[in-house]
Amino acid sequence: MQTINLNDKLSMFDSHWDPHVVSNYNNNEVMVVKFKGEFPYHKHDTTDDFFLVLEGEMEMDIEGEAPRKVRAGEMFIVPQGVVHRPRAKDEVKVLLIEPKGEPNSGDADRVPAPKPHI
Amino acid sequence: MQTINLNDKLSMFDSHWDPHVVSNYNNNEVMVVKFKGEFPYHKHDTTDDFFLVLEGEMEMDIEGEAPRKVRAGEMFIVPQGVVHRPRAKDEVKVLLIEPKGEPNSGDADRVPAPKPHI
Repeated sequence: MQTINLNDKLSMFDSHWDPHVVSNYNNNEVMVVKFKGEFPYHKHDTTDDFFLVLEGEMEMDIEGEAPRKVRAGEMFIVPQGVVHRPRAKDEVKVLLIEPKGEPNSGDADRVPAPKPHI
Repeated sequence: MQTINLNDKLSMFDSHWDPHVVSNYNNNEVMVVKFKGEFPYHKHDTTDDFFLVLEGEMEMDIEGEAPRKVRAGEMFIVPQGVVHRPRAKDEVKVLLIEPKGEPNSGDADRVPAPKPHI
């Protein structure tokens, strides 16, 4: 039970598309991630997907809709079942929340599970 | 389903200790709040309590322990059952997450339910 500085946590790794768990909230993992480029389109059938941009900006592509820009200080919550793809032209730093055990890639099953708690 | 700018939401009200729901994540309400001063000590028996400071700084008092300072860009998650009290010398702006229907005051039962979605 301690204060968690998100920038400190982000400074502990350089890898992209590699969420690191920084805390737990009920049965959810709170993670920080850096990324650049685009993720595969995917959906989460049983959970919403929480994004809060901490630094930089990203686009959230929603299948069949215009992309949404999400800048530092902005959130985007993708409802369950909605096909989406985060994308960033330059490196972006993001806070994620997902239920423990949910793959970040939803049904796309591309990336490894989040790293252990840092 | 849209991008949510937290500063825009915070600019829509001036009241303290008056959380406003800005989105939903699964069965949780995501809220923004401003406060100054101290809240009553309380606990949530069945849920953790999520705080992320967006602007300013606060102290999290934990019963029987030294207070923790929580500054902008820092999180504090109070585990369920832990008696705590947020406190701020000057106005602070905070993102909160709590299960829908959970009173912010836990067992202290002092404040009204969060305002409807803005």
